[in-house]
Amino acid sequence: MNRFTVKAFGTEAPEADLKQMNIERREVTAKDVEIDILYCGVCHSDLHTARNEWHGTVYPNVPGHEIIGRITKVGKDVTKFKVGDLAGVGCMVDSCRECESCREGLEQYCEKGNIQTYNGHEKYLDQQTFGGYSERVVVDQDFVLHIPANLDLAATAPLLCAGITTYSPLKHWNVGPGQKVGIVGIGGLGHMGVKLAKAMGAHVVVITTSAAKIDDAKRLGADEVILSTDEAQMKSNAGTLHFILDCVSASHNINAYLKLLKRDGSLTLVGAPEHPLPVAPFSLIPMRKSFAGSMIGGIRETQEMLDFCGEHNITSDVEMIRIQDINKAYERLLKGDVKYRFVIDMASLKK
Amino acid sequence: MNRFTVKAFGTEAPEADLKQMNIERREVTAKDVEIDILYCGVCHSDLHTARNEWHGTVYPNVPGHEIIGRITKVGKDVTKFKVGDLAGVGCMVDSCRECESCREGLEQYCEKGNIQTYNGHEKYLDQQTFGGYSERVVVDQDFVLHIPANLDLAATAPLLCAGITTYSPLKHWNVGPGQKVGIVGIGGLGHMGVKLAKAMGAHVVVITTSAAKIDDAKRLGADEVILSTDEAQMKSNAGTLHFILDCVSASHNINAYLKLLKRDGSLTLVGAPEHPLPVAPFSLIPMRKSFAGSMIGGIRETQEMLDFCGEHNITSDVEMIRIQDINKAYERLLKGDVKYRFVIDMASLKK
Repeated sequence: MNRFTVKAFGTEAPEADLKQMNIERREVTAKDVEIDILYCGVCHSDLHTARNEWHGTVYPNVPGHEIIGRITKVGKDVTKFKVGDLAGVGCMVDSCRECESCREGLEQYCEKGNIQTYNGHEKYLDQQTFGGYSERVVVDQDFVLHIPANLDLAATAPLLCAGITTYSPLKHWNVGPGQKVGIVGIGGLGHMGVKLAKAMGAHVVVITTSAAKIDDAKRLGADEVILSTDEAQMKSNAGTLHFILDCVSASHNINAYLKLLKRDGSLTLVGAPEHPLPVAPFSLIPMRKSFAGSMIGGIRETQEMLDFCGEHNITSDVEMIRIQDINKAYERLLKGDVKYRFVIDMASLKK
Repeated sequence: MNRFTVKAFGTEAPEADLKQMNIERREVTAKDVEIDILYCGVCHSDLHTARNEWHGTVYPNVPGHEIIGRITKVGKDVTKFKVGDLAGVGCMVDSCRECESCREGLEQYCEKGNIQTYNGHEKYLDQQTFGGYSERVVVDQDFVLHIPANLDLAATAPLLCAGITTYSPLKHWNVGPGQKVGIVGIGGLGHMGVKLAKAMGAHVVVITTSAAKIDDAKRLGADEVILSTDEAQMKSNAGTLHFILDCVSASHNINAYLKLLKRDGSLTLVGAPEHPLPVAPFSLIPMRKSFAGSMIGGIRETQEMLDFCGEHNITSDVEMIRIQDINKAYERLLKGDVKYRFVIDMASLKK
């Protein structure tokens, strides 16, 4: 297998800063495309993986799974893309393609485990996969997305993870007109949830612990804001929501939010708190409520989401950084000090 | 409002034994029927309420919400029943009839709160409602069920609570042929869950902590039994079940059971453990699983369940007791020493 070297930013150990390094990519095979990376979003998973907080990180690690770029090379059997096309890559670069989930277009739930964009297994080179904090990436065309031409490219990068992670459950639980939908946690995920649920026609209710976020929630499209620290507000809104998208990744009182659901409502977790959340049986039984989880989305659905965002002119609120500032960005991310997603201008790596 | 006195068995205080007492019933109003009670099942809720374990018990308390009897009187506008008909009464004797849930036939989820068969509010007499541990009961015809003629009457009584509590979620989550359905906890609820899921055409998998229950689970209709204390069995069955009905009312490790679900599967709680159950986010997120709850069933669905049981010849496994032995039965119930439901022969009260 032919290979080539590209510059990247990665880390050699959990406690080490990210720094510039060289990594190897495979040359395009028959169905691969090579993408020159223009922008890469910074997801909290990047930090978790770089620091081995979810365990199992293989070093060196190069994070990044919100990738936007332009096709620079195509394999001989590539039909979906041509050189010069815009392209996106999200959290996955391959899957088994044979299991029930894959056959249904739900590669995120591949029963054999899909191949993650970073810290997965690169079968051609028998090494770990390296993510988007790099000059170029080579991916099978089936896992590459078309990018609507009307969107700001940098602000589109976060759609590849934060966008699809919120879009998929909103669609799966049939969010639409006539429904009141709660969004808990206004960060990278939650701010996309507000924009998407609103564009789907729902009445959007943001639930936040912070009075400081009320104005911003409304700017993002919320019809109402509930301050969760105000017991009277929580009580008067009990039993009013059809669906809640829970984007909080810290421990929180799930029973307080379950109270806001109507009969047969679901609260779906897309943030991933580290510790188990205690759920009172009587939060679920008396009104047949559900507490669920959802993970990114399939490739077909990711394309649908991108097209939907193109039609509705939806992108992420982003703050641009240079790759050399990634370690500072991680520190600010830990403090929630970003509105609402850092995106790396990859030109900074190529100088 | 005219009233009459009947003999009953009830309790005057949380720590007191149940004993014989007299209670008052209203005379039938236009749409009421009076039922001579033949059999009454003993549900764990009876004990919880008698002992004020869920708080809010008004004394004296007369439990019993698995009632089978024969109509002895009908109000002038009663159309559903005539004197001499068999009749059943479950957990509810009325509801608001106006809210969204009631209009959909889901009186169990009445938004104003339905009227429970015991320890509810008897609006005509402005007193607490008294349950089926009594000679007769007067109930609005709309909350009275027809009993299939082919079933053993005593063994049919538990269908009014244990039957509908398990039937309703099995129907709601579309259990049927081609599905593998897990039943956790083989007691009053769980043994009905096995029989009903099997009759619905599912492949039934009992999950039990006790090797001693394997044979009985198979006798009840289980196609397979997983011993939950055997890690190898739990592991080899991971990701195999479409739906799990969780009938356990003690604390248990919900994450171990969630592992058994396939993608998009639901685990639904019908037992009501006292303490919150810790749910790991990664038990739900990676395969879009749900943890849900369900409570009894509506009146229309209860009739459907009874008719289904008539067709499939399904009743509860019961042990008959005299009303004078109810306190001993409660002690045995606490030890799980019953296969699988005590039913009181109400003739014992009438002597």
